[in-house]
Amino acid sequence: METTGRHTDNHALNTAVVRKILVEFLRDETQHAGFHKGIVGLSGGVDSAVTTFLATEALGKENVLALLLPYASSSPESLTDARLVASQLGIRSETIDISPMVDAYLGTRSDAGAVRAGNVMARERMIVLYDVSARENGLVIGTSNKTELLLGYGTLFGDMACAINPLGDLYKSQVWRLAAELRVPQQIIDKTPSADLWKGQTDEGEFGFTYAKADQILYLMVDERRDDAELRAAGFDDAFIQRVRSLIMKSQFKRRPPVIAKVSHRTVNVDFRYARDWGT
Amino acid sequence: METTGRHTDNHALNTAVVRKILVEFLRDETQHAGFHKGIVGLSGGVDSAVTTFLATEALGKENVLALLLPYASSSPESLTDARLVASQLGIRSETIDISPMVDAYLGTRSDAGAVRAGNVMARERMIVLYDVSARENGLVIGTSNKTELLLGYGTLFGDMACAINPLGDLYKSQVWRLAAELRVPQQIIDKTPSADLWKGQTDEGEFGFTYAKADQILYLMVDERRDDAELRAAGFDDAFIQRVRSLIMKSQFKRRPPVIAKVSHRTVNVDFRYARDWGT
Repeated sequence: METTGRHTDNHALNTAVVRKILVEFLRDETQHAGFHKGIVGLSGGVDSAVTTFLATEALGKENVLALLLPYASSSPESLTDARLVASQLGIRSETIDISPMVDAYLGTRSDAGAVRAGNVMARERMIVLYDVSARENGLVIGTSNKTELLLGYGTLFGDMACAINPLGDLYKSQVWRLAAELRVPQQIIDKTPSADLWKGQTDEGEFGFTYAKADQILYLMVDERRDDAELRAAGFDDAFIQRVRSLIMKSQFKRRPPVIAKVSHRTVNVDFRYARDWGT
Repeated sequence: METTGRHTDNHALNTAVVRKILVEFLRDETQHAGFHKGIVGLSGGVDSAVTTFLATEALGKENVLALLLPYASSSPESLTDARLVASQLGIRSETIDISPMVDAYLGTRSDAGAVRAGNVMARERMIVLYDVSARENGLVIGTSNKTELLLGYGTLFGDMACAINPLGDLYKSQVWRLAAELRVPQQIIDKTPSADLWKGQTDEGEFGFTYAKADQILYLMVDERRDDAELRAAGFDDAFIQRVRSLIMKSQFKRRPPVIAKVSHRTVNVDFRYARDWGT
């Protein structure tokens, strides 16, 4: 095992096997749901690039549509990188500027700061993705990774909204390794992760810690169910342990359906429970 | 038991008890999540009216904000009825015309028919509800009833999006009875149910059957787990039984979180499972 700083690397990944599993997952779930096509929101970042590479391998390049959905303040480099992915894969892409939709609302909300504005942008993108998926008769393929899902670093009903998600069980550190396996352009692998919702925004700047450190503790805490004493022994201090645990717990609402008041014998999502693809 | 046509009425409801349960549900869930305020999208229909009455009883009139979110083609009567609810309850209300947001997108999509347009409208309303809930530090209270949830008659990430839902375990027939108990204005109880997404739209016209008939079979099928022979004996024909079953099964994806490809020991929503309000 390699080591990253003082922490043992616990994210070793058999990238060839994972690639095969995820390609089969995308193919099976899409066909099982009665579809052939997948729609991906391609941001220029590594998660959506990896997702698009996997979707193309699973569904064929004629069955993947990449949507590039810039806002006025989005980095031009994001768009360039997204176009590079689409052209390298030979898939269809469509660019739709979300600024008119976003500004039609935010123009009336002078009190909305960066976080509220970012959520509006993420949700307007969801609207476009779902509308185009209806036009195309395709499924929206999500791009959230396990680090984001556990830390709640995503917009509910925004970038977290999708039909199927190939990366949701891979930590960011693992997504980077899979990106290398898939030969995602190096400039996309190397760039600083950012939601690109405002200028200068970086994921790690917002967290106040690195993905490397987050992924180490998340793996121990979630996958290995280590207790605080073990986490301290692994080199994490109490404040950081509590911070991460709090982020996980406080974002649980983003990972679950709404709570329904139970007043009958069988209640949706309480005792009326079936798999998501039950009906297909 | 009263009878509705040839079907025995199986939706008798102790409205006083259910009212008390739902008021306590709204109060407990809101406080437990660390909030005091609730935000409701008030359409002028009976579901959102009942939800707003319950929320006001649970949280106090100073803690409920009704958002009236008309589109250009919305019926003026809808807005009038929504205002009547807000003024009768003495709660704050805010009217935001979603037309500029909707048209900024749909103006570029000449191929989008009524269903796609309706989904865009429902999702733009979600954006406003969630943005205002962030401003107000309140929870979005949903208004979907059990009939809609089971038949899939709602927009995913649109009107189905909420934090807590008091009506999700009540069939439409039961919502009407609860409305009478709560003294919701009679004109709202009596009006023909409609999503009001386009002129002349009615729920029952879209279904091709009445709520009375749907609720009868749903109760037998879902709550009582009756088989086809029993449903036929209750007076339902095979085509209708299959139609309803198909609607339930095909809309399961709207009631569940996205499917995540499992590649680790513990996967979000597979074996990493906690209640939605775990972290609060």
